[in-house]
Amino acid sequence: MEIKRYNKNHRMSQIVTHENLIYLAGQVGYGDTVTDQTKSVLASIDELLAEVDSDVSRILSATIWLASMDYYDEFNAVWDKWIDPENPPARACGETRLATDDFLVEVIIVAAKK
Amino acid sequence: MEIKRYNKNHRMSQIVTHENLIYLAGQVGYGDTVTDQTKSVLASIDELLAEVDSDVSRILSATIWLASMDYYDEFNAVWDKWIDPENPPARACGETRLATDDFLVEVIIVAAKK
Amino acid sequence: MEIKRYNKNHRMSQIVTHENLIYLAGQVGYGDTVTDQTKSVLASIDELLAEVDSDVSRILSATIWLASMDYYDEFNAVWDKWIDPENPPARACGETRLATDDFLVEVIIVAAKK
Repeated sequence: MEIKRYNKNHRMSQIVTHENLIYLAGQVGYGDTVTDQTKSVLASIDELLAEVDSDVSRILSATIWLASMDYYDEFNAVWDKWIDPENPPARACGETRLATDDFLVEVIIVAAKK
Repeated sequence: MEIKRYNKNHRMSQIVTHENLIYLAGQVGYGDTVTDQTKSVLASIDELLAEVDSDVSRILSATIWLASMDYYDEFNAVWDKWIDPENPPARACGETRLATDDFLVEVIIVAAKK
Repeated sequence: MEIKRYNKNHRMSQIVTHENLIYLAGQVGYGDTVTDQTKSVLASIDELLAEVDSDVSRILSATIWLASMDYYDEFNAVWDKWIDPENPPARACGETRLATDDFLVEVIIVAAKK
């Protein structure tokens, strides 16, 4: 089965699929608060997964980068409502400064096709 | 082949399997020293892999987060004795502040089923 | 299909393959500047992928760790010329202190076999 790439520019693809796996680029979001950026990030993930006929219930692993671990509880409050409670992914969360200081949250997803 | 999730709560699964791949949540451990926490982390990985009938010899990749790179040698002393010398994984190791300052070491594993 | 491991030592393998996937160890490079180290890292990735009959056009995902986000533009100038413009990977880029302070850039690759 071939590799397919979606929403690509000169630097990266937002989605790459290969066999039954989906790799998303690290998603960052917009807004002034951790809550708003997290909602924006997770909405982007929903949209990208929908493009390849998948959804939140098919996420295998999530790597979460927070610009400060002080954002942990605020991030999780949004995350915990978003994930499918029957199908939570494996995840890891660490503190990492992101591409610009405006970005507070980044989430990297590997998911499965339907 | 379907997705299976093990040891799940409202936030994440400790194990997700899909086709022949196994994704573990980032594992943290207990103890006051890097040595003790590393032993605890690697023992958890052994237990989780055993739950899905895999083991240390089937690890494909490991991402290691140390709360301080000063822990590098102490972490590796435990790691080097733990891995299967015939079957070492691809790995990467970076410094990342973890969910709480008590956690000194986190390890993220992708492995293969038998 | 079995797991194969290449360029292995007591700690890790530089390449692990399983079914149609290729996992590379995090690659660091040599040189005094971000430009030189990035060229060195990407040349190592080219060599490792060639060992398993793959290449830059088959990269699925790249995780990029920069020792300082100040290196972002200098890293990308080399990256943007290196990737196959028809086949850019999913990627994420965060700031992470690396194994020694001499290392400015590390790149972790998952790719597909031909």
